[in-house]
Amino acid sequence: MFKRQLLYKFAALFFMENIKVSIITIGDELLIGQVIDTNSAWMAQQLNEIGAWVHRRVAVGDVENEIWQALDDENAASDVILITGGLGPTADDITKPLLCKYFGGKMVMHEETLEHVTYLFGHVFKRPMPLLDSNRKQAEVPDVATVLKNYVGTAPGMLFEKNGKIFISMPGVPHEMKFIMEKHVLPLLKQRFALPYIGHRTLLTVGIGESFLAERIKNFESSLPQNIRLAYLPNYGMVRLRLTAQGEKESTEKKLDEVFSILKNEVKDVLAVDEDIPFEILLGRFLKEKNKTVTTAESCTGGYIAHLITSVAGSSDYFKGSVVSYDNSIKENVLHVSNETLASVGAVSEETVKQMLKGVLNVMRTDYAVAVSGIMGPGGGSEEKPVGTVWMAVGNVERVETKKMHFRFDRKRNIELTSVNALYLLCMFVKNDS
Amino acid sequence: MFKRQLLYKFAALFFMENIKVSIITIGDELLIGQVIDTNSAWMAQQLNEIGAWVHRRVAVGDVENEIWQALDDENAASDVILITGGLGPTADDITKPLLCKYFGGKMVMHEETLEHVTYLFGHVFKRPMPLLDSNRKQAEVPDVATVLKNYVGTAPGMLFEKNGKIFISMPGVPHEMKFIMEKHVLPLLKQRFALPYIGHRTLLTVGIGESFLAERIKNFESSLPQNIRLAYLPNYGMVRLRLTAQGEKESTEKKLDEVFSILKNEVKDVLAVDEDIPFEILLGRFLKEKNKTVTTAESCTGGYIAHLITSVAGSSDYFKGSVVSYDNSIKENVLHVSNETLASVGAVSEETVKQMLKGVLNVMRTDYAVAVSGIMGPGGGSEEKPVGTVWMAVGNVERVETKKMHFRFDRKRNIELTSVNALYLLCMFVKNDS
Repeated sequence: MFKRQLLYKFAALFFMENIKVSIITIGDELLIGQVIDTNSAWMAQQLNEIGAWVHRRVAVGDVENEIWQALDDENAASDVILITGGLGPTADDITKPLLCKYFGGKMVMHEETLEHVTYLFGHVFKRPMPLLDSNRKQAEVPDVATVLKNYVGTAPGMLFEKNGKIFISMPGVPHEMKFIMEKHVLPLLKQRFALPYIGHRTLLTVGIGESFLAERIKNFESSLPQNIRLAYLPNYGMVRLRLTAQGEKESTEKKLDEVFSILKNEVKDVLAVDEDIPFEILLGRFLKEKNKTVTTAESCTGGYIAHLITSVAGSSDYFKGSVVSYDNSIKENVLHVSNETLASVGAVSEETVKQMLKGVLNVMRTDYAVAVSGIMGPGGGSEEKPVGTVWMAVGNVERVETKKMHFRFDRKRNIELTSVNALYLLCMFVKNDS
Repeated sequence: MFKRQLLYKFAALFFMENIKVSIITIGDELLIGQVIDTNSAWMAQQLNEIGAWVHRRVAVGDVENEIWQALDDENAASDVILITGGLGPTADDITKPLLCKYFGGKMVMHEETLEHVTYLFGHVFKRPMPLLDSNRKQAEVPDVATVLKNYVGTAPGMLFEKNGKIFISMPGVPHEMKFIMEKHVLPLLKQRFALPYIGHRTLLTVGIGESFLAERIKNFESSLPQNIRLAYLPNYGMVRLRLTAQGEKESTEKKLDEVFSILKNEVKDVLAVDEDIPFEILLGRFLKEKNKTVTTAESCTGGYIAHLITSVAGSSDYFKGSVVSYDNSIKENVLHVSNETLASVGAVSEETVKQMLKGVLNVMRTDYAVAVSGIMGPGGGSEEKPVGTVWMAVGNVERVETKKMHFRFDRKRNIELTSVNALYLLCMFVKNDS
C-alpha cells in the first residue's frame, strides 16, 4: 500500500494520468423511472473540476447478477468505479453483502460507525429510541473495505481496491453522497493521481439555429487544436457553445482563452453571455452592480420566474416579491389591469402585460419588473391565440419593452421556456439601462 | 421478416416474454454533468407500462470506441437496445455514421425525410431559408435501417435488427424522443413481443422513519409471493412504499390489490395517500370536488408552491393567484402583517404566517390559503432561528393550522421540502374541512 503510493507520487512527476472513471448507480427506482438521477450529473461536474473524466455511467436495478455484471464491466473499462445507492437499512438493499462477496471479504461490525449511528439516533429523535437490528446492520462493513465516514447519515462509504482499480461505494441519498465525495473521494483522487487540467469555456447565443451557427463557424471548428473540442448544446431556443480542453494547466488555459476570444468574435452579433451562467444569477449580478430591485407579475408562469430569481442565495438583496395573477380578477383588482383591456384584447395581449408591469411596479415599489401572460396548454388555446402564445413585458416606470413569443412544447416546458426567455429580456434591459 | 413475425405471434400464444431493454444515452454533456438525463426516467416509465423491463442504462460520451463498446455490451445483455442522442446536425455528433458502420450498411439519402426537412425549414422560418449541407445530411440514413419518421424534428429515428436483437436510435431532444417512442417504439414492441403485465401499487407514509417502517412490516414483507417485490423510497422526509408485480394481468392485479390492502392496514396510522401522486395533483382533486379555490402567500419559497400548483393542467379552475412577499415591506404593505409583529417576533414566526394567511385570503378572495416563512440558507440563520427553520400556516377565514418545521439541507432542497410539506398540510386541511 505504502509502496504503491510512493510509486504513484514518483510517477506523477513525470506524466499526467488520464484516469477513466465509471459511475454505477444501483436501484430499481432509477430503472422504472420513479426517480430522476441527479446524483450523476453533480458527481461528473465535481470530477471534471479535478481533471477526472467520467467516460461511462451505468444504472442497474437491485438485482444481484446485474450488479455483479456491472462491477465486472466497469472494472474492465475504468480505473476508478464510483457506486451510489443500495445502502439503505431496508431489505431491498442488497449491495453491501454483494460487495463483500465480490471483493472476497466477510462482514464485521465497524465499532466507530456503530457509535456514530447510536449517536445520531440519540439526537435526531427527541426521546430515546432503541437501535433496531437494521440500524445496527448499517454499521457492519466488509473487512476488506476502508470505511469512509459519513457524518451526515447512517450508511458509511466504503473503499475497495482490486488489481490496482479503486471502487468506492456511497449511499444514494444526495446530501450523503455529496458529503462523502467532498470529504473523501475528491481529495483521495487528487492525492492518488496526477490528474490533468480540464478547462471549459462556454458562451450562449440567442436568435440563431444550431445548424446555421455550425455553418458559420465551420472553419473555426476545423482549425481547433487536437486537445480542444467544441460542443453544441441547444436549449430553450438558444444554443450554448462549449469548448473543452485538457492538458497542463497554464498552457491549456492560455490556449483556451485565445481560441475562445476568436469564437466570441465569430458569433458577436448573436452572443448573449460569454460564460456558463443561468440568467437568474446574471440578473442578480446586474442588479447588485446598479443597486436596484426587481419584481415579477406572472400569469401563465405561475410563480416560476420568482422561484428562479429566489433560488439564488442572497436574492433578498434585490428581489422584493411578486404577484401571481393567474385569474383575471387578480389582474384587475391587485394589478389594476383595466377591465376594458381584458374584455377587448384579452389577458394574453401586449396591452395586458404592459398594464401588469405598471401595476406590479406600483404594488411592489421596485426599480424593474417583468410581466408575462400566455397559454401554456394543453387547454385554453384558440385559432387566434394557440397554445404556446406568450406576451412578455420588461421595464421600469419610464420605459417598457414587450415581446411576443410562441412555444410549441408541453405545459412544463412551455413554462420553463417562457420563464427563461423573460429572464433573458429582463437581464438585457437591466444591463443596457443607464 | 414476415416469417419471423408469424413465428413471434405464434409463440406469443404459448408464453409471455420477459424482454430485457437497455437504454444507451450518448453525449458528452451528460458525462460532464452539464445536463441532467430526464429522458431515461420517462422512457423507463413508458416501457414499464407495456411490460418491458429496463434492466440497464448506460451513458457514454461522443467518442467512437466508447459508443461501439456500449453497443457490444448491451447487445450481449439485452433484447432491445434504445439509443438516444448524438443525432444533431453539428460536427460533434458521430452516432449516425458509427451506427451505419456497426450494422454494416452505407449512407443513403432518404427522400421522404429530405422532403420533411425541407418542409420544416419552409415553415419554421418566416422567410425562405436555404437548406444547409448539414440539414441535408440529417436526411441521410444507413441503408440497413428502417426509418421511424419524426414529424416534430429533423433527425429521424432508425431501427436496426441484428441477430434477433432490436436497436432503435432516436434524437436526444426530449419532445422528439417522446414522439418517436409513442408513435413507433411502444406500438412496435407491443406488437412484436408477448409482454407480461407489470403492476405497481404505491403508498406514502408521513411521520415514520424508513427503518422503523421496515421493522413494522417485516413479516408482511417476508410473506410476499415470489412475483411481488417491495421497495422503500424515502423522500422529503416521507417514505413511499412500492409493490411491483409481474405476471398475467388479471391474476396479478387481483393479487396486488389483496396484498396492497394488507399493507395499507399495517401502516394505516401513518398513511398519507394510497397512490403515487404528487400533492399538487391531490390538492387539485380535493378542491375540484368541493368546488373551492386556493391561494398562496410565500416568503422563503419564493413562488415555488404556486409553481407546483400551476404545473397541473386545469389548475386555473381553482388557483386564483399568489403573493410572494419576500421583503418585509411587502408582508406589511400588501398582506398587512403588522409592523409590531415583525418587530417583536420577526418574519419567521407563527404569528407572521397567521397574518400572512389572513392577508392573502383577503387580497385573493379564495376559500383556502397556505402561508410560509422561513430561512432557506446558506445565510440568514441565527442561534435562535437556524437555517432551515420554517413556519407554515394553512386554513380558511374560520380556522388556521400552523406548524413549525426544520430542514437541514441546501437552499434548493430546503425550498422543495418546505413546499412539499406545506402542500401536504394544505391537502389534509382541505380534505378534512367540512
